[in-house]
Amino acid sequence: MRFDALQYCAWSREVFEQMRAGRLDAVHATIAYHEGVRDTLANLADWHRRFEDHADLIVHARGPEDVRRARATGRTAVVLGFQNPSPLEADLGMIRVWADLGVRFVQPTYNVQSLLGAGWQEPVDGGLTRMGREAVAGMQRHGIVVDLSHAGERTALEAIDAAERPVAVTHANPRAWRDTGRNVSDAVIERLARTGGMLGFSLYPHHLRDGPETTRAAFCGMVAAQVRRFGDMFGIGSDLCQGQPDAVVRWMREGRWTRERGEATFPPQPAWFRDNRDWDGIEAGLLEAGLTAEQVEGVMGANWMRFWERLA
Amino acid sequence: MRFDALQYCAWSREVFEQMRAGRLDAVHATIAYHEGVRDTLANLADWHRRFEDHADLIVHARGPEDVRRARATGRTAVVLGFQNPSPLEADLGMIRVWADLGVRFVQPTYNVQSLLGAGWQEPVDGGLTRMGREAVAGMQRHGIVVDLSHAGERTALEAIDAAERPVAVTHANPRAWRDTGRNVSDAVIERLARTGGMLGFSLYPHHLRDGPETTRAAFCGMVAAQVRRFGDMFGIGSDLCQGQPDAVVRWMREGRWTRERGEATFPPQPAWFRDNRDWDGIEAGLLEAGLTAEQVEGVMGANWMRFWERLA
Repeated sequence: MRFDALQYCAWSREVFEQMRAGRLDAVHATIAYHEGVRDTLANLADWHRRFEDHADLIVHARGPEDVRRARATGRTAVVLGFQNPSPLEADLGMIRVWADLGVRFVQPTYNVQSLLGAGWQEPVDGGLTRMGREAVAGMQRHGIVVDLSHAGERTALEAIDAAERPVAVTHANPRAWRDTGRNVSDAVIERLARTGGMLGFSLYPHHLRDGPETTRAAFCGMVAAQVRRFGDMFGIGSDLCQGQPDAVVRWMREGRWTRERGEATFPPQPAWFRDNRDWDGIEAGLLEAGLTAEQVEGVMGANWMRFWERLA
Repeated sequence: MRFDALQYCAWSREVFEQMRAGRLDAVHATIAYHEGVRDTLANLADWHRRFEDHADLIVHARGPEDVRRARATGRTAVVLGFQNPSPLEADLGMIRVWADLGVRFVQPTYNVQSLLGAGWQEPVDGGLTRMGREAVAGMQRHGIVVDLSHAGERTALEAIDAAERPVAVTHANPRAWRDTGRNVSDAVIERLARTGGMLGFSLYPHHLRDGPETTRAAFCGMVAAQVRRFGDMFGIGSDLCQGQPDAVVRWMREGRWTRERGEATFPPQPAWFRDNRDWDGIEAGLLEAGLTAEQVEGVMGANWMRFWERLA
C-alpha cells in the first residue's frame, strides 16, 4: 500500500500516469490554499472533470474503501483536502457541507492567522480560537481529518489536546532534523504519539536537512530513527508540487492577505525523488536504513490507511 | 451638529422620521456583523433602496460634505460601516472595493478572533495579526475609519500603535465606569487621546453603569468627567438597536461561528433614551452636568465631524 498524504501538482494525465508507474494507491490533493467557498467549489469541479476524463487512472476517494477499490482496479485514489480553513468562511455549518462533498483533510491554519488558530509564520500564536475548538470537534464529527501541518506550536498542541480523536500532521519533518517552524517539535510528535496521531514525512526541499542536496540515505535514516523511537505513527506526505510555476508558490505564501510581493520560487527536488515514479527508491532506502519489511510497508502507506480506517 | 457613530435599528420610515424629529444630522449604520462579500453586498443594496424610497429623510454619506449637505436640506446622512472585517474575506484588495462602495468605518474585530485580530470575548488576544497590520494601513490609505470597538485589549493597543493616523472606538464606555471587556480601559482612552483618536459613548444598557436603570445624570456626569480629563476626543455612539427582534442579538453574538445557542435578548433602553427623539434630553443632561455649550456641541457631534474631516 502506497499512500501520499499531500501533493499539489500541476495535475495532468502525465502526472496520473506517473502515479500509476510508481504504484501509488492513494494521494491527498489540496483544493484550497486561500480560497473561499465559491473558488473552492470551482477547484472541486475541476477535480470532477479530471475524475471523468482520466477514469482509467484515478478515482475520487471518499473513504478507505475507495482506496482499496482503486488498488484492486489498478488506479490511484485521490482524497481531497484544504490547507486552510478559508473555505469554511465564518460558518461552522460549512464543515458538514464540505464533508458531504468529499473533503477529508482540513488544516485549521495555513501559514498565518486563520479564524481557527495561528499558522507558524504568525509572530504571535494565541492558540486554538473559540471557533477553532468547535471546528476541530465538528471536523471529527463529520469524518474530516484535522491536519496540523503549517500550524503554530501552541495552536498545534492545543488542537491535539482539544480533539477527542486522533489528529494528523500530513506533511512535515522533525524540527530537530531541520530547524524551521514549518517542521514539528518533539513536543508535537510526542503528543501525536500519545494520542494515536500521525505524521507524514515531507520530501519538500525546504523541510529536508540539506535542502535538495539531502541524500536518500539521510532522509531514510531520519525516518528509521523516528520509527524506532515512536513506532507505527508515520507515513509520507511528500508535498510534491510537480510542474507548478513559481506564481503558485507566491499564491501559497501571499494569497491575497498581504501586499508584500516576494521573489519565492520552487526549489529543485532531490535527485532521488523527482516525481511519483520514484516511490520504489524510497521503499528501497527505508529497507537499507534497517527498517523491517512490515515497518516499511507501514511508512509507505499502511499506517495512513489504518489511521483513516480507525477514524472514518 | 448631531452625529451618532453607531446604530443598528430595524430600519424603517418611522425610524428615519424619528431621526428627523431628534434633529440627527448623521448616523453610522452597520451593514455587516458576520457576513462575507455576497451577503454584505445585499445589505448595501438594501440601503440603496432605502435611500431612494426615503430620499426626503436620509442620504448616503460618502464624506463629511454629505453630512453638511444633509443638514442643509433637513435630512440625516447615513454613513455605512462593518462591525467585523468578514466582508474582506481573506482579500486585502477588498478594502479598496468597499471604500469605493462608500464604506467608511470598519472594525478589525468583532467579539472573537478575526483574520485581523482578537475580539474582547476571545480568551487569548494575540494582538494585531500580520494581515491586521496591513489592513489597518490599507483602511487608512483608502479613507476608512479604523474602529476598535469590540476589540481585545492587546489588539486595540497594537492597532492604535500601528496606525499612522488617528483611529476610533465608535461605541463603548470607560471600563472604569462599567467593568466589562466590551468597554475600554484607561490605557486605550489615554492612547487614543495621545494620537488624536476618538471615543463614542454608548447608550446600550450593557455598557451603562446600572444597566437600563442608569440615570441620565449618571451617564452625563461620566461624560463630563471624561471631557474634563481628556478634552474634545469624545462623541456619542449610541449602539441603538431599535425594533430589532431578539434573533438579531443572537445573530450578533453567535453568527455562524458557534453551535452554542444562547438565550440572549435585547435589554430595555433607559427611559431617557428610547429612540432618536430623545437627543434633546442628552444635550440638556450634558449642560446640566456642567459642560460648556461648546463642549456639549463637541460631544453631540462636532467632534466626530472634525475627526472625520481631518481623516477624509
